[in-house]
Amino acid sequence: MAKLIATLGTSPGGVFETYVNLTSGNYEGENAVPADITEVYVIRTTDKSVEFAWKLVKAIFACCKGEGVNLADIPIPIQDINSTQDFKVFKSGVLSRISVGDYVDFTGGRKAMGVAAALSARERGAHVLTTIIPQGEYNRISEEIKGLTSKENLVEMAGKGNCSEVKDVICRLVSKNARTVLLY
Amino acid sequence: MAKLIATLGTSPGGVFETYVNLTSGNYEGENAVPADITEVYVIRTTDKSVEFAWKLVKAIFACCKGEGVNLADIPIPIQDINSTQDFKVFKSGVLSRISVGDYVDFTGGRKAMGVAAALSARERGAHVLTTIIPQGEYNRISEEIKGLTSKENLVEMAGKGNCSEVKDVICRLVSKNARTVLLY
Repeated sequence: MAKLIATLGTSPGGVFETYVNLTSGNYEGENAVPADITEVYVIRTTDKSVEFAWKLVKAIFACCKGEGVNLADIPIPIQDINSTQDFKVFKSGVLSRISVGDYVDFTGGRKAMGVAAALSARERGAHVLTTIIPQGEYNRISEEIKGLTSKENLVEMAGKGNCSEVKDVICRLVSKNARTVLLY
Repeated sequence: MAKLIATLGTSPGGVFETYVNLTSGNYEGENAVPADITEVYVIRTTDKSVEFAWKLVKAIFACCKGEGVNLADIPIPIQDINSTQDFKVFKSGVLSRISVGDYVDFTGGRKAMGVAAALSARERGAHVLTTIIPQGEYNRISEEIKGLTSKENLVEMAGKGNCSEVKDVICRLVSKNARTVLLY
């Protein structure tokens, strides 16, 4: 049993795909076997557009076959990494959540968030991985998300399992061709 | 004396700004004093658009007060980081160039390149830093670059010090409001 700890930016892209690929053994890396992930921690800033991305992640897990896993929201109290202090706050927030053998995914969020997450993972003896979403699909998904910003209530309901009204569009936010690469 | 080792993506943004801010002591970090940088290593992939970004960096250093520093091109023989193998090749390319006390800037390039550079820096006991370019300026600079793609010959000449024909536009590629943040 291990946790998947994923950074999140303004797009939900990556978290669910990493979870699915990791637990099914469908990733690149030495001895790629299905990982036993029972918890997914989503590490994010408190920026408004990132809050919305978190609601989308929650809806995706609730409506698109993500049941059976505990999804935890870990908001770090910064808006962005704009200073040494922001970096320290973010990094200590990530570091304190990682245990040996966990999987740390730096796909989402700013480059400095990815650096903080990867350094923390290595300090703790955790795995480091990322998921590559083809640019064309990434652009399509970004457009779909724009269409959902006016439906925040429906997205929140979907996050609680009331998927019927938005299930189709929510599940179109999942990349079909995402490749997950284990680096450590 | 130390080297500045910077990753480069499809935009030249960051390398020159980091160099100027670092050598003038105009950066955020504990005991921020002017750093004695005599060499700048630009680490990049061999992708075509990244090659062009390198030519722009060379022109910026040659035409916009970057004289007195040795600028070295370090192309790593991959197109992008799409696999564990690409990551390994890129990381070992960075790692082998870093000495204790060097400054490693992960501003340019893909997130996985930034992760490789930051991990390498920490392994070697080098500093880690990044430069933040305001989004509006970044967009303006991206537009200016598009206008230069048809003038690759002039950009190459500028890189050799023949600046007269493109100096104005080349130096407009330098952000005036870039902030450099030393993380380690």
